Amino acid sequence: MIKNKAKALLLICDGLGDRPSLDGKTPLQAADTPFMDKISEDGINGLMDSISPGIVPGSDTAHLAILGYDPHKYYPGRGVFEALGADMELCEGDVAFRANFATVDDKMRVIDRRAGRKGSEDLADALNGLEIEGVEISLKNTTEHRCAVVMRGKNLSKYVSDVDSHEEGSEVKKSVPLKLKEGGNELKTVNIVNEFVMMSYEILNEHPVNNERREKGEPPANIVLLRGAGIYEAVPPMKEHFGFDAACIAGASLYKGVAKYLGMDVIPVEGATGKTDTNLNNKAEAALHAFEGHDFVFLHVKGTDDMGHEGDFEGKENMVSRIDKELVARIKDVDSYICITADHSTPVSIKRHSSDPVPVVINGDGVRKDKVNKFDEFSVASGGLGRIRGVDLMLILSDFMGYYKMFGT
Amino acid sequence: MIKNKAKALLLICDGLGDRPSLDGKTPLQAADTPFMDKISEDGINGLMDSISPGIVPGSDTAHLAILGYDPHKYYPGRGVFEALGADMELCEGDVAFRANFATVDDKMRVIDRRAGRKGSEDLADALNGLEIEGVEISLKNTTEHRCAVVMRGKNLSKYVSDVDSHEEGSEVKKSVPLKLKEGGNELKTVNIVNEFVMMSYEILNEHPVNNERREKGEPPANIVLLRGAGIYEAVPPMKEHFGFDAACIAGASLYKGVAKYLGMDVIPVEGATGKTDTNLNNKAEAALHAFEGHDFVFLHVKGTDDMGHEGDFEGKENMVSRIDKELVARIKDVDSYICITADHSTPVSIKRHSSDPVPVVINGDGVRKDKVNKFDEFSVASGGLGRIRGVDLMLILSDFMGYYKMFGT
Repeated sequence: MIKNKAKALLLICDGLGDRPSLDGKTPLQAADTPFMDKISEDGINGLMDSISPGIVPGSDTAHLAILGYDPHKYYPGRGVFEALGADMELCEGDVAFRANFATVDDKMRVIDRRAGRKGSEDLADALNGLEIEGVEISLKNTTEHRCAVVMRGKNLSKYVSDVDSHEEGSEVKKSVPLKLKEGGNELKTVNIVNEFVMMSYEILNEHPVNNERREKGEPPANIVLLRGAGIYEAVPPMKEHFGFDAACIAGASLYKGVAKYLGMDVIPVEGATGKTDTNLNNKAEAALHAFEGHDFVFLHVKGTDDMGHEGDFEGKENMVSRIDKELVARIKDVDSYICITADHSTPVSIKRHSSDPVPVVINGDGVRKDKVNKFDEFSVASGGLGRIRGVDLMLILSDFMGYYKMFGT
Repeated sequence: MIKNKAKALLLICDGLGDRPSLDGKTPLQAADTPFMDKISEDGINGLMDSISPGIVPGSDTAHLAILGYDPHKYYPGRGVFEALGADMELCEGDVAFRANFATVDDKMRVIDRRAGRKGSEDLADALNGLEIEGVEISLKNTTEHRCAVVMRGKNLSKYVSDVDSHEEGSEVKKSVPLKLKEGGNELKTVNIVNEFVMMSYEILNEHPVNNERREKGEPPANIVLLRGAGIYEAVPPMKEHFGFDAACIAGASLYKGVAKYLGMDVIPVEGATGKTDTNLNNKAEAALHAFEGHDFVFLHVKGTDDMGHEGDFEGKENMVSRIDKELVARIKDVDSYICITADHSTPVSIKRHSSDPVPVVINGDGVRKDKVNKFDEFSVASGGLGRIRGVDLMLILSDFMGYYKMFGT
């Protein structure tokens, strides 16, 4: 029986989609996935282009689309998600960046983009609260060498290029305007960015923490490199956009940031690392608990994407098998719709995101169960959903849940 | 193994798609196509709407879309392709037309729209270089009665109606503005068009070439009728749009014109006529050679469309069998992705373009080989590509080739 309102669980296995490689199979085909397969067998299946066919999605734009927010309209730039994911507060007009502690020599050449993969709260504190041209800068060290940086002030722009060249040995780049869209805002912003980067070197290079690191033979974290500028603008939260209370369970900060941006409650989970060593049992438990106060639970697993980027077929296969056994097995009987999909493909053969569409299944009351009985990139192609787009998915799910707006009468 | 960058061959069989007619089969189903079928068997298949479902595409708009340029944004009007295909130079703002030599009586009634299917370089020269209201007119006789006409001057518009009524017995039409989009440009342009048509009659009617033709009992080519106005604006060439060097092999001038418009190198081929008598062997050889300096080769065959327009089932079937044997057999082992498709359907039962989607297959490293093993309008419907659109195709192909831009990070 279809109830008036139902709940739904959306499991996104990051970068899950793949191309056939080992013995003509994808990691998802090779993996042991009896529980996902049962959900496919009982559900309606299809292929999904997160953005549209042929477009290679970033993880950020793909998640926005799949969560029902067209990234062509709502994408603020990566830095916003990094800052929100690091629990920093954002106000309208704030410009946020992904940032790295890095090691440079005295000619400003990058020796180690990641400063030995080691950051420091003391170093972050030394920069936190700086003010340049009336713009206040805050900085937070998240994991290892990674930071998020927020600039607060008037007339800032996100159309500024990255300082991080992604190449070791080359000099630190100057940020330049990417377009001159908002009058002088881009010029003002690049000045502040470039000055901040220079100040970070002056302050950090002589900092006692770095002197200690040098003594121990460790690379000093003597500069902060910025990239992925984004500008914060409030968007209609999920409660307003769809009508339900939504929760997010994720390890990696980007996904927590996307969730906060969309007004979801981010539920902390012990041992959720955003890597292959994440505690899937705890995430499954957290998802089940989350339904106590929420109608919609978005559950994210990152490890599949990492293995794709590393070109590790077996690693990806094993991660999928673990997701099936440690996570899907535990959530499969939840009293809600279940949707399993990916944000994009990260084929192990090319070690990057690709535009190959991802499998998607929806299981629950009243779905048009098709003949698909295996959850993989090939089997779902003949399923009842056909080939849909990311922005379609939440509309389909929310209609099943009983939250919908009719177009016309 | 997937390389960093790969090449691709796109074979477009014009008007290939059809509806079931003879014994419930389409010409493509009836034809003998072992090589296309093998490519389908090893590849990923689907159906494609060049524009979108239900839209009947012209050959020009369909090719723009399939080559990755949304015709809603990039379509300049047919005349531009005709002029470029006739090797005429175009500058920004030039207005170009398809044109015909025709035969009219002294009351300006059209006796023969095609002037006995016979043009003349001398007659073209008699009109070439005319100037009307500061606008310079050039004209080139291409094949038979066909011409391309270019008008160069300030403030011209493409929004002018055709002079060619497509009906014999009726009077030559006056060109009128189709909209008043650009101030007075349409009014200025129709004046020049109408004056040029009248001048062409005055100059050609008494021309010695036509006096000779009359003596021989041939219809005089005593007027030039214009249609399909287009205005030239430069578009980002393929090298910029996708990042690769592209070549075109085609017989018919429209397709060469589209290719030039998109910055492709058009490779001349001995015996490539753009009709059913074209030399397919030579086209295959030219395609293989083209890969020496190019990453992407677009190979066009026109004869299938001609047979559709003539309602000739057997002719179309035979043309398809020839394409398979004389062309696909020779290119099938090329070290590149191969994509075979059509620009639109031209069903023999209705002798015109239709919106029925066309079959499409992509074969090469890493494609998700599906269960389709026959390349036809019915078999491909269950393939792994599902139903895509023309503008998706080059994005999908270029991602396989390793040329892509990520949306987001």
